[in-house]
Amino acid sequence: MDRLILDRREVDSVLNRALVGRIALSLKDQPYVVPLNFVYTGGKIYFHSANEGQLYTYLKANNQVCFEVDEPGETIPNADPCKFSFRYKSIIAFGKARFLEKPPEKIAILKALVEKYDKNKVATKEVTTESLGDVEVLEITIEHMTGKTNAP
Amino acid sequence: MDRLILDRREVDSVLNRALVGRIALSLKDQPYVVPLNFVYTGGKIYFHSANEGQLYTYLKANNQVCFEVDEPGETIPNADPCKFSFRYKSIIAFGKARFLEKPPEKIAILKALVEKYDKNKVATKEVTTESLGDVEVLEITIEHMTGKTNAP
Repeated sequence: MDRLILDRREVDSVLNRALVGRIALSLKDQPYVVPLNFVYTGGKIYFHSANEGQLYTYLKANNQVCFEVDEPGETIPNADPCKFSFRYKSIIAFGKARFLEKPPEKIAILKALVEKYDKNKVATKEVTTESLGDVEVLEITIEHMTGKTNAP
Repeated sequence: MDRLILDRREVDSVLNRALVGRIALSLKDQPYVVPLNFVYTGGKIYFHSANEGQLYTYLKANNQVCFEVDEPGETIPNADPCKFSFRYKSIIAFGKARFLEKPPEKIAILKALVEKYDKNKVATKEVTTESLGDVEVLEITIEHMTGKTNAP
């Protein structure tokens, strides 16, 4: 049976563990969803983007977004196929995205991304204003978030 | 370096392997994305839904959808954090969803779902017109599909 995850710490830990999230966007009611790496910090979701392409075009046109992470588990079959269940946890967050403008803000997020994904501390070069190049950094302010699970 | 997956068999095999897909929908330019189990057969994507709730409401209002699966791999760090890469494969399909109406069509898809998710053949009870109940079965006709990878 599906149930809501009501414990904010559990929601936060699913978001913190996830290596891939999917962002859904809409342009003239045409939805678009794309997987991305991200970091969740200070209650907000951050990711980077090129300054061209489909993701960028959608974000520029409509900053209403929906962000999803999930932890799929195993299928639990049943003699009655109508009673199959699928163990999972998922978080779905609705919010607004904005492009960060200040280089120090962008650098702080890129450093947080490096920290999340570089577990073995391979990176030695610093992220600097010069190395930012054309990268865009986006911040999602969450307006509404739901966690669901059917794990026991 | 990202590259397109141009081999249709590779696209199909990623879709066939995936146990979870995410469907993105839009209602008055508010995007919504939700994970779901699905089956890919005859070049179309099928899933089921309750006949109420957010997914149902969005589908009834706008049948333009975007469907995503991904196979995330590992992060490949680099001394220069701007050169980090993330091994993955993803498929993004744009299309239109429609509610199947004929019980035999719905039953055929529910049986295909059982076959996909019930690897150990636990299900013994047949899916019948009577057992369909209120379940809705949706078919996505793909209009455009892109596979991407940065795996070597």
